[in-house]
Amino acid sequence: MERTVNVGLIGAGRIGRLHAETLAHRVRGVSLLAVADVVFEAAEKLAADFDVPSALKDHRNILDDPKIEAVAICSSTDTHASFIEQAAQAGKHIFCEKPIDYDLKRIDRTLKAVEKAGVKLQIGFNRRFDPSFKKARTMVADGKIGTPHIVRITSRDPKTPPLGFVERSGGMFADMTIHDFDMARYLVGSDVEEIYAIGTVLVDPAIGKLGDIDTAVVVLRYENGAIGVIDNSRQAVYGYDQRIEVFGSKGGIVVSNPTPDLAVLSDADGVYSAKPLYYFPERYAESFIAEVREFIECVQEDRVPPVTGIDARIPVAMAIAALKSSRENRPVKLSEIG
Amino acid sequence: MERTVNVGLIGAGRIGRLHAETLAHRVRGVSLLAVADVVFEAAEKLAADFDVPSALKDHRNILDDPKIEAVAICSSTDTHASFIEQAAQAGKHIFCEKPIDYDLKRIDRTLKAVEKAGVKLQIGFNRRFDPSFKKARTMVADGKIGTPHIVRITSRDPKTPPLGFVERSGGMFADMTIHDFDMARYLVGSDVEEIYAIGTVLVDPAIGKLGDIDTAVVVLRYENGAIGVIDNSRQAVYGYDQRIEVFGSKGGIVVSNPTPDLAVLSDADGVYSAKPLYYFPERYAESFIAEVREFIECVQEDRVPPVTGIDARIPVAMAIAALKSSRENRPVKLSEIG
Amino acid sequence: MERTVNVGLIGAGRIGRLHAETLAHRVRGVSLLAVADVVFEAAEKLAADFDVPSALKDHRNILDDPKIEAVAICSSTDTHASFIEQAAQAGKHIFCEKPIDYDLKRIDRTLKAVEKAGVKLQIGFNRRFDPSFKKARTMVADGKIGTPHIVRITSRDPKTPPLGFVERSGGMFADMTIHDFDMARYLVGSDVEEIYAIGTVLVDPAIGKLGDIDTAVVVLRYENGAIGVIDNSRQAVYGYDQRIEVFGSKGGIVVSNPTPDLAVLSDADGVYSAKPLYYFPERYAESFIAEVREFIECVQEDRVPPVTGIDARIPVAMAIAALKSSRENRPVKLSEIG
Amino acid sequence: MERTVNVGLIGAGRIGRLHAETLAHRVRGVSLLAVADVVFEAAEKLAADFDVPSALKDHRNILDDPKIEAVAICSSTDTHASFIEQAAQAGKHIFCEKPIDYDLKRIDRTLKAVEKAGVKLQIGFNRRFDPSFKKARTMVADGKIGTPHIVRITSRDPKTPPLGFVERSGGMFADMTIHDFDMARYLVGSDVEEIYAIGTVLVDPAIGKLGDIDTAVVVLRYENGAIGVIDNSRQAVYGYDQRIEVFGSKGGIVVSNPTPDLAVLSDADGVYSAKPLYYFPERYAESFIAEVREFIECVQEDRVPPVTGIDARIPVAMAIAALKSSRENRPVKLSEIG
Repeated sequence: MERTVNVGLIGAGRIGRLHAETLAHRVRGVSLLAVADVVFEAAEKLAADFDVPSALKDHRNILDDPKIEAVAICSSTDTHASFIEQAAQAGKHIFCEKPIDYDLKRIDRTLKAVEKAGVKLQIGFNRRFDPSFKKARTMVADGKIGTPHIVRITSRDPKTPPLGFVERSGGMFADMTIHDFDMARYLVGSDVEEIYAIGTVLVDPAIGKLGDIDTAVVVLRYENGAIGVIDNSRQAVYGYDQRIEVFGSKGGIVVSNPTPDLAVLSDADGVYSAKPLYYFPERYAESFIAEVREFIECVQEDRVPPVTGIDARIPVAMAIAALKSSRENRPVKLSEIG
Repeated sequence: MERTVNVGLIGAGRIGRLHAETLAHRVRGVSLLAVADVVFEAAEKLAADFDVPSALKDHRNILDDPKIEAVAICSSTDTHASFIEQAAQAGKHIFCEKPIDYDLKRIDRTLKAVEKAGVKLQIGFNRRFDPSFKKARTMVADGKIGTPHIVRITSRDPKTPPLGFVERSGGMFADMTIHDFDMARYLVGSDVEEIYAIGTVLVDPAIGKLGDIDTAVVVLRYENGAIGVIDNSRQAVYGYDQRIEVFGSKGGIVVSNPTPDLAVLSDADGVYSAKPLYYFPERYAESFIAEVREFIECVQEDRVPPVTGIDARIPVAMAIAALKSSRENRPVKLSEIG
Repeated sequence: MERTVNVGLIGAGRIGRLHAETLAHRVRGVSLLAVADVVFEAAEKLAADFDVPSALKDHRNILDDPKIEAVAICSSTDTHASFIEQAAQAGKHIFCEKPIDYDLKRIDRTLKAVEKAGVKLQIGFNRRFDPSFKKARTMVADGKIGTPHIVRITSRDPKTPPLGFVERSGGMFADMTIHDFDMARYLVGSDVEEIYAIGTVLVDPAIGKLGDIDTAVVVLRYENGAIGVIDNSRQAVYGYDQRIEVFGSKGGIVVSNPTPDLAVLSDADGVYSAKPLYYFPERYAESFIAEVREFIECVQEDRVPPVTGIDARIPVAMAIAALKSSRENRPVKLSEIG
Repeated sequence: MERTVNVGLIGAGRIGRLHAETLAHRVRGVSLLAVADVVFEAAEKLAADFDVPSALKDHRNILDDPKIEAVAICSSTDTHASFIEQAAQAGKHIFCEKPIDYDLKRIDRTLKAVEKAGVKLQIGFNRRFDPSFKKARTMVADGKIGTPHIVRITSRDPKTPPLGFVERSGGMFADMTIHDFDMARYLVGSDVEEIYAIGTVLVDPAIGKLGDIDTAVVVLRYENGAIGVIDNSRQAVYGYDQRIEVFGSKGGIVVSNPTPDLAVLSDADGVYSAKPLYYFPERYAESFIAEVREFIECVQEDRVPPVTGIDARIPVAMAIAALKSSRENRPVKLSEIG
C-alpha cells in the first residue's frame, strides 16, 4: 500500500480550489494539511470546504512545516518563480501551475534552484493527462502511425477573457497557445526548431487596443522534419474546441471534442446534437485529477515527474518566438530566442 | 443557502461505498453521520475511508438516532422492504436501492407503511439521471418528437454475472431488465398494459441450468398506443451497451454509448475507435451522483422525489409479466399480474 | 471479355425506368433491345430516353423475340406471376420485381413453372446489394460476430403513401415489411420459425379506415435460436430510416443511415448535421444497379442468382404470419401458414 | 424544356472518358457529337463505348464543325492554352480541365482571347461541386458562421503518383495544392494576399531527387483578414483524405470524409469502421457530374459559368507564391508574383 504524502497548498483561488478537491477526495495516499493565501478569507473558506486542518495567510508557514513533504503552487503567475525557489530551498517537492514565469532567464534561475535542491518539480500542463490525448500520444509512441509528418492542434476558447485578465495575461501566445506548444511537443516527442506565426484581432478590437491578439495560426517546424499547425481563437461560440491530429507514414490519429450528452434529435428540419463541453473545468476535469495523482505517485515512488522543468521552459520560449514571428512576419528559429 | 441533511447509510458493500463517496464529497448540504453493516468490518472500513463519525453493526442504531433525518438503504435486496418499513416508522426519509422486493404484495405493504409515515421515498433507478437519457426524456416531454410511437431500449451487460449471483438474482427480467422497464416508462411518460417476451439461453448453458435466461427481447404495448422493444444480453463482448431511441410523429431521439476516449486511429487496414465504457460504475458514474443529489434536494426543499413508490412497484410487475409471457409464449396483460 | 446479354423490359413505369437506366448505362455486356408497356406512350418515352430500339404494347412480342435472352419484369404486381410463367415457358431468364404474388399457392405454381423451364429467376430484393448491408452480411458469414443472437431492423418510410396505393398494396406487412423479412433472413443466413407482430395505426387514421396499419413491431424467432426485431413506420419525418444491427457471441455490427452531405454546422445554439437520404431512389441507388449487374453476370456465367424463388416465397409467408399474429395477438408459427 | 447543346470532346484519356460518360448519360439536353484524340484508337474506343457518332484524330475538325456549340478540353496540360484559344476563335463555349497553363502570362493571353471571342469558359475545379463543400460554402455565404476567421483544408492523396508523373506535374503546389487554393478562395469568397509555405520530402526521397516535395503546410493571409491553413501529403495510407473547416464569429462548419459503407463492427478488441473512399474518382464522382451539368446549363441559359478565367489564373499564382515561399522560407505576397 502507498504511503501518505502530506501536502500544503499555496493559493486558494479557482485553480487552487480545483486542486484542493482533487487532493481531498480523488487521490489516495494524500493528506492536505494546510492552505495559504494572501487573501486569508479565501484560505479559510477552502479549508472549511475541504476539511483542511490549517488555513494560513503566509505561505512560508507551509514551507517551514516539517510534516509537509510537497506543495502545490496555485498562486498568481508572478509569484511562481519565487515560490518554487523558496519551496525548493525548504526541500519540498513542487507541483506548480504553468507558467513558471514569462522570462526565460528567470525560469533558468528557478530551475537551477530546483536542481540544486534535488526536489521534484511538476508543471501543470494538465492536457497531457486527458485520456484521449494520452491515448493518441501512446499510439504515436508505439509506432501505430509510423513516423509523424503533420500535427494539427485546434484550441479555441468559448469566450474572450475579461479585458482585465488580458492585460495581465502575458499575451495570447504565452497564456493560451502555451498549452498547445506543450501539446505539440508531447504528441510527437520531438522539439521544434522554427516557428512562423500569424496573430491577429478578429474577435474583439478592445483586445487589440491592449496590444494583444485573439486569433492565431502558428506553424511549427520540428527538429525531426515534421510540420505542426496550431490554430487558436479566443471565441468559439459553440464551446471549447480542443482537437488534435497526428498524421504519419503509417496512419493518422484524430481526437474530437467530448460533449455533455449523446442525445441526437432528428426532426423534419435536421439533425441536432450537443455542443462540446463548455470550458476547461468540464473538458479537462479528468486530466486535472490525473496530473495531481501522477505527481503524488512520483513522490511516493520517487520517480521523475512526467512534466518537468525543461517542459516548463520550452513552451515559454516558443511563445516568445511566436510573438516575435508574428510581429516581424517571418519564421523565427528557437535558437534566436535563447 | 441549503440547510444540512444528516444521513445514515445502511449497507457498506459495493453500492454502499459508491453512495458513501457521493454523500461524503459530491453533494453539498449533507452530513453522513453513520454507517451500519452486519459485517461490522465493512462499516468500519467505509467509515474510515469517508470520514464517517460512526460505524455500527445494527442499522437500528441509525434509525434510533434523532439527529439523522434520512437514510440510504444499500443492504441486500431481501432486507429492503423491512428496512424501509422500519425507517418509515422511525420517521426517516428513505433512499433505497432497487428493488424493494420481488413480491408485489410485500411491496404494497411497504409502500403503505411509507405513506402512513408521511416520509419521502426514492428508489435507485439511477439511469433516469444519466445526462443523455434525461435530455431525451426532457425533449420527449417538451414535444420535440410529437407523440411517441416506437421506443427501443438496448441494454447489454459486458459479461455474465457469477453463477452464484444468478441463483439469487430473481432472474434476468427482475434483476437486469427491470432497469429497462423503468426506462421505458420514464422515456414516454406512459404505462404499459401488455408485454410479450422471449427469454432464451444463448450465452451460457450454465445459466439455463439454473432456470434463468441470458438473452431476451421484450415487446411493450403502452396504454397510449406506443410500442416499445427492449433487447437484453448478459454478454456484449465489446462492453456495456446502453442505448435508447424514442421515435414519434415529429421526429426521433437516439442516445448512443459513451466511450472512455475519443481518439480515432486510421491506418492501411481500417479505422479504429474506443469501445463503450466497460460497465455501470463507469457508464453511470454521473447518474449515481445525480440521483443522490436529487434526493437530498427533495429533503431540503420538501419536494416529492422523482422516483417514488409506484415507480418501484410497476417494473417489478412488468418483470413478473415478462417472465410469465416468456414461459407461456403469449402476450400477458399487466392487469393479469395484480 | 463478357458476352452481351440481350434483354427485354416489361413495364415502363417508375421502377421500369430505373432499371432501364441501369441496363442502358451502368452494366457492361447488356443490350436492352425492347420495352413493352400496356400504356404504349410510356414504352415509347422510355425507348426514346434510353435509346431502346423497340417500343411495344404487348409484352408477348418480347417473349417471342428469339434474340432476347432475358427479361426484366417491372409491371404491376398482379401480373408478375403470369408474366413469369409466360417468360419461363418462352425460355427467358427472368428478373422480376418483388413480390411474385401475395398468394402462396400462386407463387408455388409459378416457381414450378420456372423450375420446369430451367430458366434463371432473380427477385428484386435490392437491399441485399446495399454496400453496407452486404458488408454486414459478409462479416456475419465470416464469423466476425460469432453466433448471431439478436437482429434489429429499423425500416421507416419518410411519408405515408397515397391512400390509393394503400388500398392496392396488400397491406403494410406485405408491401413494406416484406423487405425487412428478406433482410432478416439474409443477415443471419437462417430462417424464422415463429413471428409475433403488433400492427397499429398511429400516423394516419385514414390508413386504419382502409383496414391497413402504419406502425408495427415484429419479433422473429429464428430456427437457430436467434431473436429478431423489426420496427416499421410509414412516416419518419426526418427521412428514410433504414438501419440494421446484428449482435452475436463475439461482437456486433451496426449500420446507420447515409446522408446527402457530411457538412456539420456548430453555432451558439447547437450542432447540426444532414438528415438521412430522403427515400429509396437515393438510399438504394447503388443497390438497384448492383442487383441488375449481378443478374446479368449470373446469365453470362450461368450461375444461380443470389435471390431466387424460395427467397421470394418465404417473405410472403412471413407477411401472412405477421398479419395473422397481429390480428390474433399471439405468436404464429410459419408452419401454420403453409 | 431545355434545348440540346451539341458538344465535342477533345482528349480521350482517363478524364476524357469520365466526362464522356457524364455527357452521354448523366446530363439532359446534351448531345456528344464527336471526340478527338491524337491517339486515334483512344478516340475510337471512347466513341464506341459511349455511342459518339464521330471519332477524330485532329481536334480542329471539332472546332470547324458548325453543329458543335461547346467543347470539353481534356487533353494534356501543355495543350490547354492553345486549344482554348483556338476554340474561342472558333466561337465555341469551353469547358477545360485545370490548369490552363503553369505560366501566368500564357494564361493571361488565353483569357484575353476568350474575352475577345465572347465565349463562355469554365475550368474544371470540380471540388466546388461536391455536395458537402457546396453546402459549406452556401452556409458561409448565408452568414451561418458570421465572419470567417480561420479556414482549414486537409488534402492528402492515398498514394504517391508515379515518378514519371511527378516529373511532368509542375510540382506538388501546382498539381495538387492548386485544388486547395481554389477551395480556399471558394469557401471564404475572398482572395489571399500573402502565403507562407513549408514544402518538404517525408514520404519518398525519390520525389525529392526530382526536385519536388510530398508534404506541405501552407498558410494563407486573406485580404479580409481571415487566416487559412492547407496541409498536404502525397500519401495517406488510409485513403483519400479531403476535409475542410471554416470557423467564424458565429460558428464553424466541418466536413469529414465519406466512406464506401456505414457498417461498424464492435468486438472484444475494439470498434472498426470503413476507411475513406479511396481516391478522386470515387470521392468526387458526384462533383465531376455536377460541374459538367452546370456548364451545360450555363450554355443553355446563357449564364456566366461559376468557375471562370480568373478562377483559373489565381490558384496558379498562389502555387507560384507557395513555391517561392517554401524555397525562400518567408511569407510571399501575391503582388510579388504578378
